[in-house]
Amino acid sequence: MYVVVNAAMSADGKLSTRERRQIRISGPEDFERVDRLRAESDAVMVGVGTVLADDPSLTLDDRDLVAEREAMGRDPHPARVVADSHARTPPDASILDDTAKSFVLVAEEEPTEHVQSLATAGAEMVVAGENRVELPEAFEKLENRGVERLMVEGGGELIFSLFEADLVDELHTFVGPKVIGGRDAPTLADGEGFVVDFPELDLVNVERIDDGVLLSYDV
Amino acid sequence: MYVVVNAAMSADGKLSTRERRQIRISGPEDFERVDRLRAESDAVMVGVGTVLADDPSLTLDDRDLVAEREAMGRDPHPARVVADSHARTPPDASILDDTAKSFVLVAEEEPTEHVQSLATAGAEMVVAGENRVELPEAFEKLENRGVERLMVEGGGELIFSLFEADLVDELHTFVGPKVIGGRDAPTLADGEGFVVDFPELDLVNVERIDDGVLLSYDV
Repeated sequence: MYVVVNAAMSADGKLSTRERRQIRISGPEDFERVDRLRAESDAVMVGVGTVLADDPSLTLDDRDLVAEREAMGRDPHPARVVADSHARTPPDASILDDTAKSFVLVAEEEPTEHVQSLATAGAEMVVAGENRVELPEAFEKLENRGVERLMVEGGGELIFSLFEADLVDELHTFVGPKVIGGRDAPTLADGEGFVVDFPELDLVNVERIDDGVLLSYDV
Repeated sequence: MYVVVNAAMSADGKLSTRERRQIRISGPEDFERVDRLRAESDAVMVGVGTVLADDPSLTLDDRDLVAEREAMGRDPHPARVVADSHARTPPDASILDDTAKSFVLVAEEEPTEHVQSLATAGAEMVVAGENRVELPEAFEKLENRGVERLMVEGGGELIFSLFEADLVDELHTFVGPKVIGGRDAPTLADGEGFVVDFPELDLVNVERIDDGVLLSYDV
């Protein structure tokens, strides 16, 4: 599977405020770029923290992109994927609506009735890992269900886990001209953090868009 | 006073690891740029956290820059400034060595003997603010002692405080091609964080140097 991570961060590396309130970091040009990146993907993934904080639908905004996908015989929207070890996604979350297919990745030890309620809400459940989703195994299962190109939109906990499991192929960060600050505010890569063997990136493109800059890396 | 903040951060906005261990983020070209920026400043400032973690001397590396300053009748090195509300700077810290002048900013409530031991170690003490250094007042006092142009090199707590007090004129961040990660790792701007009235920046220059990119903003 080919994995592209995309996120907008403030000049100081934050994805949102310490209250986890999403604020507008990028502009219309970047929104368009993100929509196009989604359209080119088989699925778009977020962590459950992002679902709980923002309730995103992750579907395409631009009708032309939907039409392009349909003309190619693809589903109108890419599938949605939630990394959700403990099945905390609310059954009425936007990401489970019937606009597009949804996968929820959960750990084995989740109670059956819990998993069942998400399945009833329309999610395809992917079980991998004992008490925490084992991402490499989950990604193999997603690949078997047709997800060859995956776009990841955050948050920082999921992005860190992906780097930790060495699953990221590309990283795109829009850096916006704003300071959010906060030692407890979510950053592009949270989790435990690396102390040795830091993932090394290759900066392949630098492009000014909107009032900020888009940095594109290969991993 | 004109205040320039300069820092190197990873692609995910971290200044160091969660263990506060400094790792090499930038390269030789950026080191040279930072040295030049220091040479153009009357003083170079860090927070006490940086002194305790890294024990920097903040003096110039390049003998030519020292010679240039001397030719202009200036001190060979810029002065050093530590923001240190509770006078935690060790008397044997490199920043207090006799290579250059040193100012330590402390709060009024610090015990006299404590302040005295730093003065004995060679620091010029600047007292401002009751139980925490009042930065605008301290900066006025520094200005009265000849600091017209101040460069700030971190850490994230001090940088946040400066943005909070609206004291920053320019921000330069070198973004290195590395992921550090960690929800507890120091970022470019820590502190409480903003939840409204985020400082807005103006991205005035984008320049690829070493393996990363230098982003320069006016505030």
